[in-house]
Amino acid sequence: MSEPGTSRDELGLTVWFTGLSGAGKSTLSTALAAELRHRGRRVEVLDGDVVRENLSRGLGFSKEDRDTNIRRIGFVADLLTRNGVTVLVAAISPYRAVRDEVRATIGRFLEVHVDCTLDELTRRDVKGLYARALAGEIENFTGVSDPYEAPLEPEVRVDTSVETPAESLARVLAAVEAYDRPHGLAAQA
Amino acid sequence: MSEPGTSRDELGLTVWFTGLSGAGKSTLSTALAAELRHRGRRVEVLDGDVVRENLSRGLGFSKEDRDTNIRRIGFVADLLTRNGVTVLVAAISPYRAVRDEVRATIGRFLEVHVDCTLDELTRRDVKGLYARALAGEIENFTGVSDPYEAPLEPEVRVDTSVETPAESLARVLAAVEAYDRPHGLAAQA
Repeated sequence: MSEPGTSRDELGLTVWFTGLSGAGKSTLSTALAAELRHRGRRVEVLDGDVVRENLSRGLGFSKEDRDTNIRRIGFVADLLTRNGVTVLVAAISPYRAVRDEVRATIGRFLEVHVDCTLDELTRRDVKGLYARALAGEIENFTGVSDPYEAPLEPEVRVDTSVETPAESLARVLAAVEAYDRPHGLAAQA
Repeated sequence: MSEPGTSRDELGLTVWFTGLSGAGKSTLSTALAAELRHRGRRVEVLDGDVVRENLSRGLGFSKEDRDTNIRRIGFVADLLTRNGVTVLVAAISPYRAVRDEVRATIGRFLEVHVDCTLDELTRRDVKGLYARALAGEIENFTGVSDPYEAPLEPEVRVDTSVETPAESLARVLAAVEAYDRPHGLAAQA
């Protein structure tokens, strides 16, 4: 066994961003990745859209397919986390049960609810998806025609309809940096 | 940037075992994992059967589905390898083109052809699959009713119909340990 505290034993962590499309998950995870890399951490971003392309092509947006997609992301995040990587997952991940299942598997897990009002999302509507979903043109659109189960006790909740990106980022970064602090103090007691 | 040579910069590597069912890929990768962990490396084994369960349920054994499965394993192996993990992949992976595609993506890649004669595989036939395949009861059975494209220039070729497991293991281990040696010497020159 190596000594604890050496970089070989750097502890991984999965930071899981959940929330509606357009709420700011990808923006926030990309900004956080840059901050953490700057601090010398190994970081990987698993973005829902990219992962779907690489691991889940062929899956749709039924509850079952969404859950399968989340389990696959969780499988990869677990492999990386246990090897010392800080994994930033940005995925709508609308169902609470499978998020909690992934949390239980990974262990070192910090959930960030990227919240935003539907009014604000509809106002932004960068990809024009909310207009189409509200017009009934998109089935299984989370938050409009498909459910979103907000986390009950996320480690961090940011509300991008009232906070600036810098404010949200600072709060998530603080939570990541604080993650091991209580354990560290306990170990020294 | 950290200094090269510190464990934070430990270099990952994918060791890819390809060969027919029953040739000894899983046995060899499990034994190699134990040896490498003993030497202080971070190691993950991605076994074809386990990965299919976690990343590729629903895929079959057509060429297209097999290639998709291999690309998914390659995607995960790449993420781990670039984070300093030695990844041991044990997968039939019968098609040369997709193996070479994955090799090109990952870069740090060592291919091991686990070869064995069909006679010997049929004699062992631990799972009774060869008897059934030879009786025409299994479609798409690699080496019998489906093609296997052997690597043209694998870094290591072991033949488990004539070598003992310990001999095969020793040869693969030597190749893994030699992998960075030429680069290391060049860097000091």
